[in-house]
Amino acid sequence: MPRYKLTIEYDGTPFVGWQIQAAGESVQGALARAVERFCGEAVSVQGAGRTDAGVHATGQVAHVELAKDWKPDTVRDAINAHLRPLPIAVLAAERAADDFHARFSATGRRYVYRIIARRPSLVLERDRAWRVLRPLDAPAMAEGAARLIGRHDFTTFRAIGCQAALPVKTLDRLEVETVPIEGPGMEIRVHAQARSFLHHQVRSLVGTLVKVGEGAWTADDVSAALEAKDRTRCGPMAPSAGLYLAEVTY
Amino acid sequence: MPRYKLTIEYDGTPFVGWQIQAAGESVQGALARAVERFCGEAVSVQGAGRTDAGVHATGQVAHVELAKDWKPDTVRDAINAHLRPLPIAVLAAERAADDFHARFSATGRRYVYRIIARRPSLVLERDRAWRVLRPLDAPAMAEGAARLIGRHDFTTFRAIGCQAALPVKTLDRLEVETVPIEGPGMEIRVHAQARSFLHHQVRSLVGTLVKVGEGAWTADDVSAALEAKDRTRCGPMAPSAGLYLAEVTY
Repeated sequence: MPRYKLTIEYDGTPFVGWQIQAAGESVQGALARAVERFCGEAVSVQGAGRTDAGVHATGQVAHVELAKDWKPDTVRDAINAHLRPLPIAVLAAERAADDFHARFSATGRRYVYRIIARRPSLVLERDRAWRVLRPLDAPAMAEGAARLIGRHDFTTFRAIGCQAALPVKTLDRLEVETVPIEGPGMEIRVHAQARSFLHHQVRSLVGTLVKVGEGAWTADDVSAALEAKDRTRCGPMAPSAGLYLAEVTY
Repeated sequence: MPRYKLTIEYDGTPFVGWQIQAAGESVQGALARAVERFCGEAVSVQGAGRTDAGVHATGQVAHVELAKDWKPDTVRDAINAHLRPLPIAVLAAERAADDFHARFSATGRRYVYRIIARRPSLVLERDRAWRVLRPLDAPAMAEGAARLIGRHDFTTFRAIGCQAALPVKTLDRLEVETVPIEGPGMEIRVHAQARSFLHHQVRSLVGTLVKVGEGAWTADDVSAALEAKDRTRCGPMAPSAGLYLAEVTY
């Protein structure tokens, strides 16, 4: 059966997360339903990353097998027509090899985390970024981030319930970017890239870097927290609304 | 009575526009109610620009007179507390001179219009930009824009119901910027600046520039439409969701 690779964008706010759950509407469930409405087949939609409730994607990847050999653009447009008005869009559909697997064939994931530092609540960026009240020291955050790049035991930055076999991961990139914005305050984006991540790893890393940006922690404190391999030494976890799965590479 | 200058951000989507109307919730009405809840006074909130339904602001300016001499940051935080959960935020409050008038003292207005060219519907930027289906020729749009800068009779680009005394305005800036985005497609921002604008002028100008970006019109067609001083020669008006009142200068 022809296999299709789908690149997907979604606003995670109204969903229980990527994965199908009894508790409510999931992105995976909404996609499976849209595919079924389009071609009448009950399908399983396999995603590259199981994003949590409230986490967004600009480049999630999934694969699906269909009985018929549709033109890829027809697959994209038909699924999109059946997804409306949910905030999910298939950005691209491509034919993929029969052994392509969105999750197991992936060689890298890139996430972006958006932080806006200002006193008033977010309005135009509500549910799109983490609002912190005070300006952040971006160069200090970058210094802290540099301590985390490379191959480490990330037990400190891993959810208690994380199901990965090992806590050792190689973080290829953790960059702190300052982005110009309209109005008062500042926006900081943290770019994180690795072959794969532990559960809650990016949000745990970002929460820790914000402690550094606030002046509460030094880069040495970050190194000490990493070396402690102790979840209780992690900074507060950053909220889901600022996190975007931006790209999956193969 | 002490007068305060307020700088205001809002998501225009749920509002009937800036101005108080019988038809529904307005930004001006919501602000007046929040001020009244905070200090118990029935006030009139005067804005610099009367944005239409669905138009956003990142830098609207208004003034208000209060009986008591509050600290400006208290005014900002108290109004914001009473505005929740509406998508309006006071970004800054300052003491202003007794003769300061948000509308009549203004010497310039700056608008930004966001266009995203891609086939799938907008998801994360829904209600925040105009989605057009095909790629746009940004250099051609810039050439068209150059024909509109300066002092002209803008009758072609003016709403039929516009209440300005004269159709002559001086457009100080009309720039076409290409902005990098995640995922497929492209984003174009049009920056427009003038002492004041006619009703629907920015959306009429942008709709016309998109005709040029699509290749349907040339820069010479833009000049001819301007010189015709005829509303029926205008391109289709761009939708409200892409427009932002970004700054008012004094």
